[in-house]
Amino acid sequence: KMLKGVLCTVLFMGALPSLAEVSQGHISVILLGATGDLAKKYLWQGLFQLYMDQVSSGHSFTFHGAALTALEPGQRLMFDVLKKLACPPDESPDRCAVLKDQFLKLSQYHQLKTAENYTVLNREIQTLLHQEGLKEAGRIFYFSVPPFAYTEIARHINSSCRPPPGAWLRVVLEKPFGHDLESAQQLAAELTSFFKEEEMYRVDHYLGKQAVAHILPFRDQNRQFLDPIWNRHHVERVEIVLKETVDAKGRTSFYEQYGVIRDVLQNHLTEALMFLTMELPANVSRAEEVLQSKLQAFQSLRGLEKNSAVLGQYQAYASQVQEELQKAGDYISTTPTFAGVLIHSNSLRWEGVPFLLTSGKALDERVGYVRVLFKNRAYCTQSETLRDAEHSQCKAKQIIFYIGHGALNTPAVLVSKNLFRPVMPEGSWREAVGQSNLRIFGQPLSDYYVYNPVKERDAYSVLISNIYHARKDFFITTENLLASWGFWTPLLDSISHQPLRLYPGGVENQHLLDFEMVSGEVAFTLAEPVELLDPSRSMPNDYQMIQTKFRQSPLVSAWSEDLISQLASDIEKTAHNSVAQSGQFHLALSGGSSPVVLFQRLARHHYAFPWKHTHIWLVDERCVPLADTESNFFSLHNHLLQNVRVPYFNIHPMPVHLNQRLCVEEDRGTELYAKEIMALVANASFDLVLLGVGTDGHTASLFPHSENGLEGAQTVVLTESPVKPHQRMSLSLPLINKARQVFVLVLGKGKHDITTLISRVGHQPRKWPISGVSPSSGQLVWYVDYEALFG
Amino acid sequence: KMLKGVLCTVLFMGALPSLAEVSQGHISVILLGATGDLAKKYLWQGLFQLYMDQVSSGHSFTFHGAALTALEPGQRLMFDVLKKLACPPDESPDRCAVLKDQFLKLSQYHQLKTAENYTVLNREIQTLLHQEGLKEAGRIFYFSVPPFAYTEIARHINSSCRPPPGAWLRVVLEKPFGHDLESAQQLAAELTSFFKEEEMYRVDHYLGKQAVAHILPFRDQNRQFLDPIWNRHHVERVEIVLKETVDAKGRTSFYEQYGVIRDVLQNHLTEALMFLTMELPANVSRAEEVLQSKLQAFQSLRGLEKNSAVLGQYQAYASQVQEELQKAGDYISTTPTFAGVLIHSNSLRWEGVPFLLTSGKALDERVGYVRVLFKNRAYCTQSETLRDAEHSQCKAKQIIFYIGHGALNTPAVLVSKNLFRPVMPEGSWREAVGQSNLRIFGQPLSDYYVYNPVKERDAYSVLISNIYHARKDFFITTENLLASWGFWTPLLDSISHQPLRLYPGGVENQHLLDFEMVSGEVAFTLAEPVELLDPSRSMPNDYQMIQTKFRQSPLVSAWSEDLISQLASDIEKTAHNSVAQSGQFHLALSGGSSPVVLFQRLARHHYAFPWKHTHIWLVDERCVPLADTESNFFSLHNHLLQNVRVPYFNIHPMPVHLNQRLCVEEDRGTELYAKEIMALVANASFDLVLLGVGTDGHTASLFPHSENGLEGAQTVVLTESPVKPHQRMSLSLPLINKARQVFVLVLGKGKHDITTLISRVGHQPRKWPISGVSPSSGQLVWYVDYEALFG
Repeated sequence: KMLKGVLCTVLFMGALPSLAEVSQGHISVILLGATGDLAKKYLWQGLFQLYMDQVSSGHSFTFHGAALTALEPGQRLMFDVLKKLACPPDESPDRCAVLKDQFLKLSQYHQLKTAENYTVLNREIQTLLHQEGLKEAGRIFYFSVPPFAYTEIARHINSSCRPPPGAWLRVVLEKPFGHDLESAQQLAAELTSFFKEEEMYRVDHYLGKQAVAHILPFRDQNRQFLDPIWNRHHVERVEIVLKETVDAKGRTSFYEQYGVIRDVLQNHLTEALMFLTMELPANVSRAEEVLQSKLQAFQSLRGLEKNSAVLGQYQAYASQVQEELQKAGDYISTTPTFAGVLIHSNSLRWEGVPFLLTSGKALDERVGYVRVLFKNRAYCTQSETLRDAEHSQCKAKQIIFYIGHGALNTPAVLVSKNLFRPVMPEGSWREAVGQSNLRIFGQPLSDYYVYNPVKERDAYSVLISNIYHARKDFFITTENLLASWGFWTPLLDSISHQPLRLYPGGVENQHLLDFEMVSGEVAFTLAEPVELLDPSRSMPNDYQMIQTKFRQSPLVSAWSEDLISQLASDIEKTAHNSVAQSGQFHLALSGGSSPVVLFQRLARHHYAFPWKHTHIWLVDERCVPLADTESNFFSLHNHLLQNVRVPYFNIHPMPVHLNQRLCVEEDRGTELYAKEIMALVANASFDLVLLGVGTDGHTASLFPHSENGLEGAQTVVLTESPVKPHQRMSLSLPLINKARQVFVLVLGKGKHDITTLISRVGHQPRKWPISGVSPSSGQLVWYVDYEALFG
Repeated sequence: KMLKGVLCTVLFMGALPSLAEVSQGHISVILLGATGDLAKKYLWQGLFQLYMDQVSSGHSFTFHGAALTALEPGQRLMFDVLKKLACPPDESPDRCAVLKDQFLKLSQYHQLKTAENYTVLNREIQTLLHQEGLKEAGRIFYFSVPPFAYTEIARHINSSCRPPPGAWLRVVLEKPFGHDLESAQQLAAELTSFFKEEEMYRVDHYLGKQAVAHILPFRDQNRQFLDPIWNRHHVERVEIVLKETVDAKGRTSFYEQYGVIRDVLQNHLTEALMFLTMELPANVSRAEEVLQSKLQAFQSLRGLEKNSAVLGQYQAYASQVQEELQKAGDYISTTPTFAGVLIHSNSLRWEGVPFLLTSGKALDERVGYVRVLFKNRAYCTQSETLRDAEHSQCKAKQIIFYIGHGALNTPAVLVSKNLFRPVMPEGSWREAVGQSNLRIFGQPLSDYYVYNPVKERDAYSVLISNIYHARKDFFITTENLLASWGFWTPLLDSISHQPLRLYPGGVENQHLLDFEMVSGEVAFTLAEPVELLDPSRSMPNDYQMIQTKFRQSPLVSAWSEDLISQLASDIEKTAHNSVAQSGQFHLALSGGSSPVVLFQRLARHHYAFPWKHTHIWLVDERCVPLADTESNFFSLHNHLLQNVRVPYFNIHPMPVHLNQRLCVEEDRGTELYAKEIMALVANASFDLVLLGVGTDGHTASLFPHSENGLEGAQTVVLTESPVKPHQRMSLSLPLINKARQVFVLVLGKGKHDITTLISRVGHQPRKWPISGVSPSSGQLVWYVDYEALFG
């Protein structure tokens, strides 16, 4: 009878849906955590907005607040919240008052604790619908509860509270969705056991921010202008920024576990990044197409390294943590409250364009924006004072999606007038009139076309409306979520050793948090000594870069990233010396996974490397075609050669593939390679040979007890590997030992045992081929990371 | 006796050089064209300055003005000039008055017309020196005469007026030094027949401009700051600009032959460019080292193309020319009075950095500057209003060598304060104090460290002093001159077809002359229809892009540059189609010189080309090692492959070099290549084969009456060329005819006869192999330029 009353009232208001429309069916919204902070602040208001918007849609509604609290106190708490619901300014007060009254009548509190509670709820909904003669359209369960409660609730919904066949189920989940790839995968796996992918709506409320939500439509509607310029040839840089003035006080129990990267960058800013970088699908409102483009964009992101980020922590944070979490006085928090991260995409469209993601607490202002700055390619012949400021091609060209707060204090889209006048959807965005004297990003506001939303809407209202409309493209799918964690987790892992810059907070930060891009990495611009919070200080002494002896030869040891940097620099130094001496540098490289990081480092950070005079040789090769992803050459090509300018003639892959067959003795590939070496490398003495070590003590493709290559005159040999692909080609130990320098790179915990072993054994190449590496007149240097050295 | 008098006066002044110093010897300065404009305006003043500066140097001087005018009127004219010589503000008026008096006494007019005149002058100098008991140090001949008079005067000096052994000769030459490479070479050859290289001082008065002259010393003295940033990773762009407000009125007889590029860019701005781009020699004051670095820098410049420049002509120019040169009313001047040129260097240091050279007459202001703008790599976390403006890393970073005039109205060196505080030579440059409210290049002057010369000196004074000090590094050597003409001449040749934009002059030019860089080229930014002076309009109709038939197949014809653009675009289109259809694009390319321009165009302008999916095959190859500069592959590699990202595995050079020998039948290179084609190219049908035509009608390496390749089943063949290297490998005609598309490129006058011939003959491959090209199911398109088509 409650529902009937509502229908009458609506009828009375003249806003009654026709009966045909009413037959769209009934929707039950169940808000779990109905008396929590988020619900109080945003969700109930969002549901009320949904009701106001959709009262004439043909659907009927009931709203079920739920929590662990017992019925009576729960009811009281909830209705206290509901009574305070506000009427939006664009709604007539009369209509709003009537609708609010109805909304309260349609809302009900439930205690949901036990399995039985859920069964009861289910029965109540069914009974109600039966009484009112309504068919069920669907149920929305909004999880506004801590993540540890997810699994339990999900199980109950799945087993006792699913709507009958023909009606849909939508469960709405709030972050955090894990704290790294592994935990996110685990949580996702659990949820997937209860819900289908299309039933889950993971909220990133940034996707409800009007300016963020308009990025894709903007790109779509302005294709004609953007197509030629939305690429690396025209975009100078992109900034995606969320600055906050508040700090984490009162929320440290949450914040201390997450930090700014998990709290803001991994989700909000990354989603904005994806909207900017993804290839535009033909139809931007089809969730599946958008998702596929997004996943592809994730694939193109260049992996983050430790130096991709600068990190800070506001000074008061430490004491807030100690106080709120009752930590001991010597407790050191390594949680960043500020981060600036440099992201690159390897896609053809974006290669080389810096994407800067920045967020922090206790900064000088509250503001969020996405700023695309275009390259300035014009030369203006007229002197500055005589230019028509608004249309000069020499003025900065930018497109800004202004998320909110800051100087404008409203969502906005800004486009420099010397770019183009954008197409904006008339109903939802309008051009701002009465320009102020504000300057935005270095230019007067009058230099831009400025658009504001016709109705400014809260992110949660937008999202709740999108749930209702099943616009899944505004939510985070499982694949999307895992792709994002897959991207961020390596950085999160590596920065635990990274010092944090301490900052006072607010305007006093001055230039302390400014940072700069330096050959693909970022660093704070102020180099003067400032206070640092350096977690590595508290570590034992041996965790420094170690330089000592290993097997009577020099040893360089450090954390793997630092070790690789050092090795790359040493290789470049050797290269310059060789080129200075002989005009050439003959470098023989090993396959395997360890060198991949080295290859990437050489390609990205060593612009002055004399590649033009470098000859690249292979230490060993698997007997597969060169273009096979398993081949050592393929990996070398992928990670190094295609990114640097080694002349074609200087590249010497091993001839494992001759006469359309692999490593057949009579094709004499080994002889061919040996001849090539003899012809080009003076005295067959390589300038530098880079080796690795296998867990069985093999090096190159020389395995224990190998018949070939451990001794004798043959310089290039065919060998057998105990693992697939079995057939290999390899330089021989005697040839390796003729080199002027040999570097051995050993990385990772998995190599700890063999490292320990070979540190003790003598010259026993038949047992451990690596022990036979001992250049007759050259130098041997070991590069072993801490994990391999210390386990 | 005149000299004696002088010595006495100087003694009286207390400024007498000691006798030992006097014994440095005597210098005779002969100014040819002593009563001309340049002499009146600058040269006599410069010589007077030299005298004032060097009166105590130990040298004695006499100054000989010379011209064609008879003695008496010449004397009168000359002394009218000398009487007006000014005293510099930093000189005491008393001393200056005395020195001026002496200078007049030391100066003398001569009529120099006939050979005898020179002999007499020589005798007079010798007699004078003998009388005064002075030894001769040297003679300076300053040619301030039109270039047509050079040879005659040079001959006379060389035969009749050389100083005796032990004394030096310096001849000073004023531009123009030719009007293109050929004329410059001719003039240089003539001069070289009279003078040694070290005797010639070619003036570019820009090298006497204090700010220009300080570029190299600045780079040298600030190595510590500049070393890390003086390169493509840090420099965003460089502007070298000379703007004039005056027009060419009264000088059109000179200007009409030269235009702005020859008048300003080829010399003044190019010299500044060299100072910026050259590698810094260890010792910047050693002329020979500087010259070598400069020549290397010229070598690295990327060749200019038609679209490397935008050109304009002020509207009044046409009528000025018609009036002053008495041209007919339908005379059209194609002389540019404005040019903006985009220059790139291929050096490792500068690759990709745009150097913009701009100059013009009738512009809005008179100013000259060299501006180095650095990339902005910083992100400033603090909001703009809260930043410390002077030191924020987010402000533009620039170094400006301000040549003069403009807002500052004085030579200056400006360095952004957020870059570094430069080291400046204390004696000659001082920091500017009392900063004004001026804005320079978008920033308040207070954002820069600003330095001005301690003494502001006229360029000619500086140059005359440098002649005296034998500082040859301030002058243009023959090699330098020819390198510069070698660089500019191709552009000068190609822009005769280029339309000129007409501009009203002065501030009314507004944005009309602003220009923009678009994928390595420049274009005016205002695309709205504006008045153009298009020389090609007056050409016959057939000089448009022609599309018709040739040998029953489609023909595309145009001027060679346009033709190459079209061909490159068509190849890219074909590539995209193939990749869309089959995922791959198999492209077979010919050797020879014609495709080089095509390769460069593809590398520079086709960023979206699907290189990753393209396989590159050779149509033919010379039997030389691949890395030999004669090999087709080498040229392909040099001009295309090393600049794009074709995967190593997709590159298929012809196996001409096997078992350390070249094209030996039993090594079966042809079979190897045929097998490779069979294995990778579906149906052995290339997606596109690019061919050329030889003057004998050969195509690929299939020569008339070849035994192999014109017919039969063999797909890859060895052939014999009538020219060296004789041995070749080539695809066969039957294989070529299996291709899906065949493009034939024919360029240049030299191909006109064969083009005409093959337009008429039928299918006679044995006589003219090109006539056998007739794809069995594919398409054939001819790309023939106007010169080949019309002769």
